[in-house]
Amino acid sequence: MAQFPLNAWYAAAYDVELKPALLARTICNQKVVLYRKTDGQPAALEDACWHRLLPLSMGRLEGDEVVCGYHGLVFNDEGRCTHMPSQETINPSACVRAYPVVEKHRFVWLWPGDPTLADPALIPDLHWNHDPAWAGDGQRISVQCDYRLVIDNLMDLTHETFVHGSSIGDRAVAEAPFVATHGERFATVTRWMENITPPPFWAGQIFQGRGYRGPVDRWQIIRFEAPATVVIDVGVAVAGTGAPQGDRSQGVNGHVLNTITPETDTTCHYFWAFARNYCLDEQRLTHELREGVARIFREDETVLEAQQRAITERPGYRFYNLNIDAGAMWARRLIDAQIAAEAPALRTIPLRPAA
Amino acid sequence: MAQFPLNAWYAAAYDVELKPALLARTICNQKVVLYRKTDGQPAALEDACWHRLLPLSMGRLEGDEVVCGYHGLVFNDEGRCTHMPSQETINPSACVRAYPVVEKHRFVWLWPGDPTLADPALIPDLHWNHDPAWAGDGQRISVQCDYRLVIDNLMDLTHETFVHGSSIGDRAVAEAPFVATHGERFATVTRWMENITPPPFWAGQIFQGRGYRGPVDRWQIIRFEAPATVVIDVGVAVAGTGAPQGDRSQGVNGHVLNTITPETDTTCHYFWAFARNYCLDEQRLTHELREGVARIFREDETVLEAQQRAITERPGYRFYNLNIDAGAMWARRLIDAQIAAEAPALRTIPLRPAA
Amino acid sequence: MAQFPLNAWYAAAYDVELKPALLARTICNQKVVLYRKTDGQPAALEDACWHRLLPLSMGRLEGDEVVCGYHGLVFNDEGRCTHMPSQETINPSACVRAYPVVEKHRFVWLWPGDPTLADPALIPDLHWNHDPAWAGDGQRISVQCDYRLVIDNLMDLTHETFVHGSSIGDRAVAEAPFVATHGERFATVTRWMENITPPPFWAGQIFQGRGYRGPVDRWQIIRFEAPATVVIDVGVAVAGTGAPQGDRSQGVNGHVLNTITPETDTTCHYFWAFARNYCLDEQRLTHELREGVARIFREDETVLEAQQRAITERPGYRFYNLNIDAGAMWARRLIDAQIAAEAPALRTIPLRPAA
Repeated sequence: MAQFPLNAWYAAAYDVELKPALLARTICNQKVVLYRKTDGQPAALEDACWHRLLPLSMGRLEGDEVVCGYHGLVFNDEGRCTHMPSQETINPSACVRAYPVVEKHRFVWLWPGDPTLADPALIPDLHWNHDPAWAGDGQRISVQCDYRLVIDNLMDLTHETFVHGSSIGDRAVAEAPFVATHGERFATVTRWMENITPPPFWAGQIFQGRGYRGPVDRWQIIRFEAPATVVIDVGVAVAGTGAPQGDRSQGVNGHVLNTITPETDTTCHYFWAFARNYCLDEQRLTHELREGVARIFREDETVLEAQQRAITERPGYRFYNLNIDAGAMWARRLIDAQIAAEAPALRTIPLRPAA
Repeated sequence: MAQFPLNAWYAAAYDVELKPALLARTICNQKVVLYRKTDGQPAALEDACWHRLLPLSMGRLEGDEVVCGYHGLVFNDEGRCTHMPSQETINPSACVRAYPVVEKHRFVWLWPGDPTLADPALIPDLHWNHDPAWAGDGQRISVQCDYRLVIDNLMDLTHETFVHGSSIGDRAVAEAPFVATHGERFATVTRWMENITPPPFWAGQIFQGRGYRGPVDRWQIIRFEAPATVVIDVGVAVAGTGAPQGDRSQGVNGHVLNTITPETDTTCHYFWAFARNYCLDEQRLTHELREGVARIFREDETVLEAQQRAITERPGYRFYNLNIDAGAMWARRLIDAQIAAEAPALRTIPLRPAA
Repeated sequence: MAQFPLNAWYAAAYDVELKPALLARTICNQKVVLYRKTDGQPAALEDACWHRLLPLSMGRLEGDEVVCGYHGLVFNDEGRCTHMPSQETINPSACVRAYPVVEKHRFVWLWPGDPTLADPALIPDLHWNHDPAWAGDGQRISVQCDYRLVIDNLMDLTHETFVHGSSIGDRAVAEAPFVATHGERFATVTRWMENITPPPFWAGQIFQGRGYRGPVDRWQIIRFEAPATVVIDVGVAVAGTGAPQGDRSQGVNGHVLNTITPETDTTCHYFWAFARNYCLDEQRLTHELREGVARIFREDETVLEAQQRAITERPGYRFYNLNIDAGAMWARRLIDAQIAAEAPALRTIPLRPAA
């Protein structure tokens, strides 16, 4: 069975990564070359010349067209060959696949499936990443694991206690009850830890906001959007000031934005950002938080890559689920449903459609 | 056909390697985590958490129990889960495999097969490694070859002439006659080289013992114990003083102890030691001999790993045997008989027995 | 289908590479050990001892015989075992394969197929490499691609425009018409570029020859000799002095000699030389040209290895051909015909013929 739906938007690059230059990247097992056009819009082509398969990313950009670095065939941003060496007539079949790409919420999104279904309205909501009411930044990292292991990881934050004990984890996370709900494209896990001593990371943040050092009410509201996006609404407020009931005015709030793109069956591109609603102008804090979250995610990477190696060694192994896996189970079901909904035919879309 | 019996004791660690800490090791294609308990006894568990397969060796030891580094499941030394995060009831099937382990003759022995057959009386005899009448030391090395190639190597010392010409090899070894015998679990090769000039290694030893520089009677008595242990009784005595007839009083004697543990089908852990019956208190000599033998074994490693690569490139190649291979042939037959004696069912022991 | 004929001479080493020492090399997926005998003639044996498969190249040369580095078996230059340890009688089947080898045109040629068909008259003509009317030198490089990709590359020099723009490529090459012809073992592509500004490389050469800085007539006459040799007659002459009609007296001329030997299905040994007919005594120029051509070929290597990776990722991909591929197409057909002409039986020649 396929491991990811193809009819979906996946983050292919952070906005700053895309320049008027050729960028090679593998998305859902497909080799793609991305570039920014002269009008600033993104473009994406199959990264293999129609003629001899040389990666087009080894050639050069000439205006909005790509010139192959071997024999000089030229392809426009629709993938059509516009020049061949030593011949006037261009073979009409000469084209490479062009992918739908859209830039939104600071990411360049690519649709690897049927292009006629590529509706920009389906791009996951990560507006916090460019909303002026929020400040923050993030990055892309490569993780050597199935993208779904990252989702499992994010859907159950119990692991913070064991993996991130020195920053955001404490006994409270592993012990607090949670509620899991789901819809057709969404699954949500909500956990409130009331009147607790904040773990080191949050103690620093709430002090920063208001110089408060006492107990807090802490929340984690994890929202999965199929197939590969997880937004986590996190924060702490002065204990007993009504945060669980909706009044977050005495607290600090962040959104951990995560969207994970399958690179191959066992590797992925993990794009994340941390956006906060306090101290918006403090660039030093933005920097500090990005580094702090990056450090935490490296702890996850070590675990996720070890888990992938263990899975690869035991093909067909079926996992046991605990109570804490409720959120991940729902996320997996929504992903599986998307995969099942794709006609088997789609799975064999020719890399090069007939001209 | 399987390459090694599972119902056997294999050295999993040198005694000094095992501490109150988690040690990951692969034995007979099985990932194992070893540790020393608070009472000093060894313990060994399957190195994959029941829940998400993370290697338990990435977690931490808490008393005699292992805490998984991902979600904090706890397993005792019998492999049973004693704690799960965020739930009171523990799934009764939650366990990992526990292996029989015994410490003896300075090695920690592990039984990878049916635990009900794990009789400590079957542990190979390597008593020279801790007998006060003998002094010496050894080490564990990783060799990238089928463990049987090491046994072939040890069962025919003709190779010393060509591989170890600068230390223990000379024409005498390749030319001297030998006698091969065998029983049900043992195979023996005996070679006497009488009245010869000793090779550099032995010239040094006999001089050390008694300041003698003349010709010697040299012996090599190789004893294989199925499936993977080889003890070589070696030494030289002043020529003509009756060593071949049993009087070794005018000589120096050592035992080369070797036990080889399959790591995978094409790699192994090679544990060895050199024990001598002279100059027992000279720690400098112990050090010198361990380094000298290590140097010699590195020459073997180069040959064995090249041989393994050649074998891997020619699947199904059948070897020709020479007269010198008599001992190795018997060792192979005893190994094959042990493998054949194991019910095919055993070969598919589930890594995780039903609870 | 096989990728190369076996009944053919392939360059196994440059003459200077072969010394009275053991040289390991893989030719057409066969491991070979080469050495120079005491009479200066080359010899080549299968690089695996009959007894335990240790590469003979890890042993040592004793006169014209090879002594295995494990148990000391000795093989003569016909591959027959002449000594075994600890036994008088030599098993008559004890032999390794010996290959026909001939030294000619500064290369050592090896015939990996049926030795009874190894006719030295079939060695490709590369006489420029040692003809006193020509001066030059070359080298062997390892390229991680199917040898036929190198041939494709050489049979269509259009790529010079895109891959070698800073040295020998210019628009003229990609735009000039060419003529492709072929015979049973040969395929030829001829391209004349008349009255052009020479590209940097040739501008330097013609200036060197005569201090001329004006337009030139430039030629490239590519001659493929099946299965793996390509000689390219290249040069420039003062424009309009009759070079196209046969009078090259006002020009400079070189021959790029190329012969490519399959190492494995996806790697090859690429032997090349550049021989010129001017400034014969200038050793500095020989050095400069060899370095210059080496630099150009490294640009090809990058492209060819990327192409091979792309092909490996898309098994069964069928290539589209352009007009410029006419020469390469004929070369491929001649190779395919040679492969087809070999009885299927040949493809399974036992590495070790019965004694």
